[in-house]
Amino acid sequence: MARIVMKFGGTSVADLDRIRNVANRVKREVDAGNEVAVVVSAMSGVTNQLVKWCQELSPLHDAREYDTVVATGEQVTIGLLAVALQTIGVDARSWQGWQIPILTDGAHGKARVEEIRGEALIERMKMDQVPVVAGFQGIGPDNRVTTLGRGGSDLSAVAIAAAVKADRCDIYTDVDGIYTTDPRIVPKARKLPAVAYEEMLELASVGAKVLQTRSVELAMKQRVRVQVLSSFEDKPGSLVVDEDEIVEQPLVTGVAYSRDEAKVTLRRVPDKPGIAAEVFGPLSDANVNVDMIVQNLGADGTTDMTFTVGKTDLPRARDVLEKARGTIGFETVVADPEVAKISIVGIGMRSHAGVAATMFKTLAEKGINIQVISTSEIKTSVLIGVEYTELAVRALHSAYGLDAEG
Amino acid sequence: MARIVMKFGGTSVADLDRIRNVANRVKREVDAGNEVAVVVSAMSGVTNQLVKWCQELSPLHDAREYDTVVATGEQVTIGLLAVALQTIGVDARSWQGWQIPILTDGAHGKARVEEIRGEALIERMKMDQVPVVAGFQGIGPDNRVTTLGRGGSDLSAVAIAAAVKADRCDIYTDVDGIYTTDPRIVPKARKLPAVAYEEMLELASVGAKVLQTRSVELAMKQRVRVQVLSSFEDKPGSLVVDEDEIVEQPLVTGVAYSRDEAKVTLRRVPDKPGIAAEVFGPLSDANVNVDMIVQNLGADGTTDMTFTVGKTDLPRARDVLEKARGTIGFETVVADPEVAKISIVGIGMRSHAGVAATMFKTLAEKGINIQVISTSEIKTSVLIGVEYTELAVRALHSAYGLDAEG
Repeated sequence: MARIVMKFGGTSVADLDRIRNVANRVKREVDAGNEVAVVVSAMSGVTNQLVKWCQELSPLHDAREYDTVVATGEQVTIGLLAVALQTIGVDARSWQGWQIPILTDGAHGKARVEEIRGEALIERMKMDQVPVVAGFQGIGPDNRVTTLGRGGSDLSAVAIAAAVKADRCDIYTDVDGIYTTDPRIVPKARKLPAVAYEEMLELASVGAKVLQTRSVELAMKQRVRVQVLSSFEDKPGSLVVDEDEIVEQPLVTGVAYSRDEAKVTLRRVPDKPGIAAEVFGPLSDANVNVDMIVQNLGADGTTDMTFTVGKTDLPRARDVLEKARGTIGFETVVADPEVAKISIVGIGMRSHAGVAATMFKTLAEKGINIQVISTSEIKTSVLIGVEYTELAVRALHSAYGLDAEG
Repeated sequence: MARIVMKFGGTSVADLDRIRNVANRVKREVDAGNEVAVVVSAMSGVTNQLVKWCQELSPLHDAREYDTVVATGEQVTIGLLAVALQTIGVDARSWQGWQIPILTDGAHGKARVEEIRGEALIERMKMDQVPVVAGFQGIGPDNRVTTLGRGGSDLSAVAIAAAVKADRCDIYTDVDGIYTTDPRIVPKARKLPAVAYEEMLELASVGAKVLQTRSVELAMKQRVRVQVLSSFEDKPGSLVVDEDEIVEQPLVTGVAYSRDEAKVTLRRVPDKPGIAAEVFGPLSDANVNVDMIVQNLGADGTTDMTFTVGKTDLPRARDVLEKARGTIGFETVVADPEVAKISIVGIGMRSHAGVAATMFKTLAEKGINIQVISTSEIKTSVLIGVEYTELAVRALHSAYGLDAEG
């Protein structure tokens, strides 16, 4: 017997038939003797409609009212799923964020979960009742409904799993697990039986959009074992767990890519102490996230500074930099949105030298020029011309022995 | 300056344009220096869709989950209207039932309001903020969302008006007031500037479906002045107030009709003490409402007993009576659904004799046979063949001088 939190996204509860399908899956876990709580999203399309209404009324709508409106989507699903469960003989009841309560901060539209009082849910689960919990929502300090931001239902599920001390948090989605890379680019990509939290974070933030990043961070912090699996097929998914749980650790777990970044170069920046703060301070103030950073020292006391920003942030970044030109004192800003970031990710890199060398060699053999390199303990990323994305991902996937056999 | 509660039904908030229209109406009252709270229904069609989903999943769905689902309709409207108000410069915030709170009993699907803590709303209104309150919903003793039954938003509005000690509760609807009778039958029907609570109760319960009966009862009990008016046109509506406020009291205020009842006759019931209890006890136990009752004493120690029940209750009533035949000891049950109840209503009838006589005479002149008569202090009702409905209503409307001039 285990205690399991099952989370179903919008496409899994898109209509009454799918809600009945979800109810049957829940019943199977209950019949197997498990204690189960369920977290659900809004029926797909519903949240978009609600968001659209708010935006049509006012592009600058009150985030508190926005939250009041959009949180209704999940409220509908929990009631319907509870009914569907009862209909097939499973005792169930719905829980809205404020009823549990799921306490969040007051950052409406992107609130952070601060505390979940799990006692009531645990008590019901012990009485063989299935709590059906509204994902994506909580209650703020002023007693108003908050939402956790798009994709926040994953976060709700992990937070609920931590609060009820679940053995596992199963995230049902429209993909059936976590792959070594994007199967649309590499047909030989393999489903990973397990990945470490840290790897998942790197994979998620660079393109493998299976689990919301914040939910992985929370799972890692609270040591919640997460499983990603398909809500339409009946086969095991991928576990996201502590690295200690992963018996056979490959050097490289996966190859990720992102075409969402742009390269920015500041030419002839004065090479003086504090210059980095002068460049990145104003960008940070303007909410522009900066990723890869390199600096090349010139001979004449100036330096070229290159970094990447999200493509959508590029106009804002240029604007901020031009305004700060007097303070910083650079010559020109050169921006290039035609880049891709390719990353190899693996816990195994920590203890093995030479892993990155294989990457550079592989790309060189294909004639792909590396523009920027950045490394972390478990990741090496390179920036290349966007037209080489598929070529690079495929070559690296083979080079690290990740291709499926046969 | 006055304190006003404005209530808008589903057709008045059916889409964003109509919500903007409602916002403008609210702004007008605010600009006139009034303190305003708003109560709204779900956008029309929304509640029906939600109800349908619940019913499709299970005809015997859990009423607590049903309430969770259907209460979302109003939650969407309050958020959207608050945004629409803010957009035109009116400070506003939404309030769900549990946030105020609107405390109800635990009768899910048809809960009764037990207490509304109006302090928070009054405080906001004094700060020139418009509370936008979700109609139709409250919170039960177990901290779960309750709904007040269909049309319950009227009830919410009156209850909120009582809680904030409003000077008036304006019910905006798709009719523009209360008429002397149904204008579809009598084109010369006149809009009444004011009717007494008691009259409205009689008019509403016999067919003038403008205000939900329970909301009129509550208004009478709490002495809330109600105005019914059109949300699409810009003209005064009808007041529903204490009879003392009505200066010129006509003998008859209106003519109402109902084709929703059926006549039941028990032939040759033993004429003994306690027989009425034996007949009506089991009907009451089966939740069958009995309306008009007459009893004709026969010569042989038996009596014929005639009464009306709701047409939809007729099969159940027959069933109950057949089962109790042994105890009651009647000969046969005869049912006739082809009847109409015509009522004349007026506070003035209390102090004037002969008002009913005009009714009987008028109907006799048209050759309409009266099957059953029942009277109360301010109402006289007759049961006639359903095919005479329009003829009777028109004749009575003229006879009591209610026809509009010209």
